Amino acid sequence: MDDVFKKELSKKPYLRAVEGGPAAVRGITASGVHCGLKPVGVPDLALFKSDRPCGVAAFYTRNKLLGAHIAVFRESLRANGNRCQALLVNSKNANCSTGPQGERDNLAVAAELSRRLGIPPELVLFASTGVIGVRLPADKIIAGLDPLVAKLGNKIDGAARAIMTTDTRPKVCAVEVRQGKKKYTVGGVAKGAGMIHPDMATMFSFIFTDAGVSFPLLRSVAAECLDDTFNSISVDNDTSPNDTALVMANGASGVHIDPKARVNRAHFKEGLEAVMRQLAREIVRDGEGATKLVHIEIHGAANDADARRMARGIANSMLVKTAIFGRDPNWGRIVSAAATAGAQFDPLMARLTLDGECVYDRGRLPPLPENLFSNSDVFILLDAGLGRGSARFWTCDLSYGYVKINAEYTT
Amino acid sequence: MDDVFKKELSKKPYLRAVEGGPAAVRGITASGVHCGLKPVGVPDLALFKSDRPCGVAAFYTRNKLLGAHIAVFRESLRANGNRCQALLVNSKNANCSTGPQGERDNLAVAAELSRRLGIPPELVLFASTGVIGVRLPADKIIAGLDPLVAKLGNKIDGAARAIMTTDTRPKVCAVEVRQGKKKYTVGGVAKGAGMIHPDMATMFSFIFTDAGVSFPLLRSVAAECLDDTFNSISVDNDTSPNDTALVMANGASGVHIDPKARVNRAHFKEGLEAVMRQLAREIVRDGEGATKLVHIEIHGAANDADARRMARGIANSMLVKTAIFGRDPNWGRIVSAAATAGAQFDPLMARLTLDGECVYDRGRLPPLPENLFSNSDVFILLDAGLGRGSARFWTCDLSYGYVKINAEYTT
Repeated sequence: MDDVFKKELSKKPYLRAVEGGPAAVRGITASGVHCGLKPVGVPDLALFKSDRPCGVAAFYTRNKLLGAHIAVFRESLRANGNRCQALLVNSKNANCSTGPQGERDNLAVAAELSRRLGIPPELVLFASTGVIGVRLPADKIIAGLDPLVAKLGNKIDGAARAIMTTDTRPKVCAVEVRQGKKKYTVGGVAKGAGMIHPDMATMFSFIFTDAGVSFPLLRSVAAECLDDTFNSISVDNDTSPNDTALVMANGASGVHIDPKARVNRAHFKEGLEAVMRQLAREIVRDGEGATKLVHIEIHGAANDADARRMARGIANSMLVKTAIFGRDPNWGRIVSAAATAGAQFDPLMARLTLDGECVYDRGRLPPLPENLFSNSDVFILLDAGLGRGSARFWTCDLSYGYVKINAEYTT
Repeated sequence: MDDVFKKELSKKPYLRAVEGGPAAVRGITASGVHCGLKPVGVPDLALFKSDRPCGVAAFYTRNKLLGAHIAVFRESLRANGNRCQALLVNSKNANCSTGPQGERDNLAVAAELSRRLGIPPELVLFASTGVIGVRLPADKIIAGLDPLVAKLGNKIDGAARAIMTTDTRPKVCAVEVRQGKKKYTVGGVAKGAGMIHPDMATMFSFIFTDAGVSFPLLRSVAAECLDDTFNSISVDNDTSPNDTALVMANGASGVHIDPKARVNRAHFKEGLEAVMRQLAREIVRDGEGATKLVHIEIHGAANDADARRMARGIANSMLVKTAIFGRDPNWGRIVSAAATAGAQFDPLMARLTLDGECVYDRGRLPPLPENLFSNSDVFILLDAGLGRGSARFWTCDLSYGYVKINAEYTT
């Protein structure tokens, strides 16, 4: 568990980190197998199953090019009252730009899984990630379903690896939330690495909880959490057509969240947000070619929207990202990126602190500290000196590795 | 002279490419010397001088962090009726984030040059480019003025090299415009390479003409040309605090452009635009680490603004830029970048042509041609199939070289 996450949780005695991601959630089992999309032996097909139907809050990419599964999800969840009991996921092929055939392929695979699980087809969802514009090899995936179902259990590693594309490691996180004398769990899994940008650039993120939560409450809390987590990260300012975040509640813990009990609602939100924020940061830390996780904090902006603009401007500046990769304390690029972000900004009011050291103070230049950007976590704090607006944002550095991965990731 | 430029000029018999950039313009002399900012022997100080005052149309970066020279230019040009006779330029130090001292340093150097040239100080401008946040070494620059003035002449190479930062080669362009039986010339010089993005991300671009042009006409024609030239290019979507474009007319040819003679005005605009467009493209072709110039054309957008959004979206996509560097025909990334650009877009109406070959046709996938992106010029044509909006835009690929240059370019 990393230090930043540990520090965050330590302030909230009703939250406790636990192992296992979604598999720590009561009623949830998972599995992952190789079905022939990735090189031999590498898992490429994942299944998440609940022992009873879950309520689902779903969020999608804002890209106007949409993976086939998104149209199917929208239709299914509208028709079935936002419920789901099994979620199948393949990597390596996005089933995107594949026309009506793409939706037919999606539904055909889901129907096969429904039959094998004995779960009604309307409660089975199937999501895809990977390359755009190549027809989904539905036959290979169907052939993988029997071993996949046979493997269902309480281990998360196979499923977490099976949804990866250019990720170098699986991403799971879970917290236990204490409510009075009872406990429930929120656990999630994510994959990211490239095409990561706000506006629902969540890549894939599947979060489960065994709390009992009504759909309206689940939907509103999850939406509140999104802005400061998956919508506050950027790897390469590209937004994928398949990005999907699902938050699913099955009530298996017996703990019910009463929306009128404000503390209970607040603690549920904090638990969910802690998991989503940590997964979001893990995605950035494992950004394509990333060697550093960059924590950006803006204070003193004219308002929150301006703070967010400056944070995004810094996060998306290739000059800032390459300087951090090169451990070059070229702080002028950071001030410049904030100044050109479309927010109210006055260089003579702003103060910039890097890794805890002030490098620019309202037009004055303190002596430049040594060894900036030398740790795996980099902290940028910009105080605009204008008002009370603030924002947090996460990005990674830009390295040779990013170029290599994306110049060679082939169609 | 490259093929695209040659083809453009061949359609306009009243335009003819000539050598020498600004030095081809009557009354203009130039020089470049080494004054101690760059490594020994490399020119870092440039001078452009007219034999009589010029009218000046000036355009600046939209970054809210501004190099010291921009405040001085605004003030001087307002006070002197938008005139200039000598332009001094240093590279390697941007004189930016240097507070009031920066403006004092700028004026002190300009005053020294004024005395040496015998030109009133209000007609001498001094611009800086390079690293942000380091005080300008005014003494070194002043020591370089005598050799600089002594070298003034009709060669452009020294001055064009002296304004370079990470550019690998000088950028000059000139055309002769025929008006009736007379001729005049438009010649310019530019430097770019990094921090190149629209909204006056013009880096430095200094264009001179010996046509006689009133200030209102010069200002309006130059502003019209900007949008489709320097505001239609992107290397890394960062906007520098020092970007400056000056268009200067001295009337030395004796040819007057009457704003009421529509053909004369149109030909002047075409001549100026041809020079600016070619310099803009040369800047992108020499973008930091660039191995390819990417020509982006959007047709069939709902309107021109939408076309521009899609063109910029494609131009700024790191995934598109790395794919082109890797010669990977991953066209899905191009459609995806257009689809997420905030413009009206329907994948089932769009058609994408790469290097003259259709790769995506309204949801259908033609066989993928071989050897896409193998030339030094790459052509992307997206027909959105929705309306009559169109746009042109230029970008470059994203290579290891970009990361290397920017991770190692040190403060």
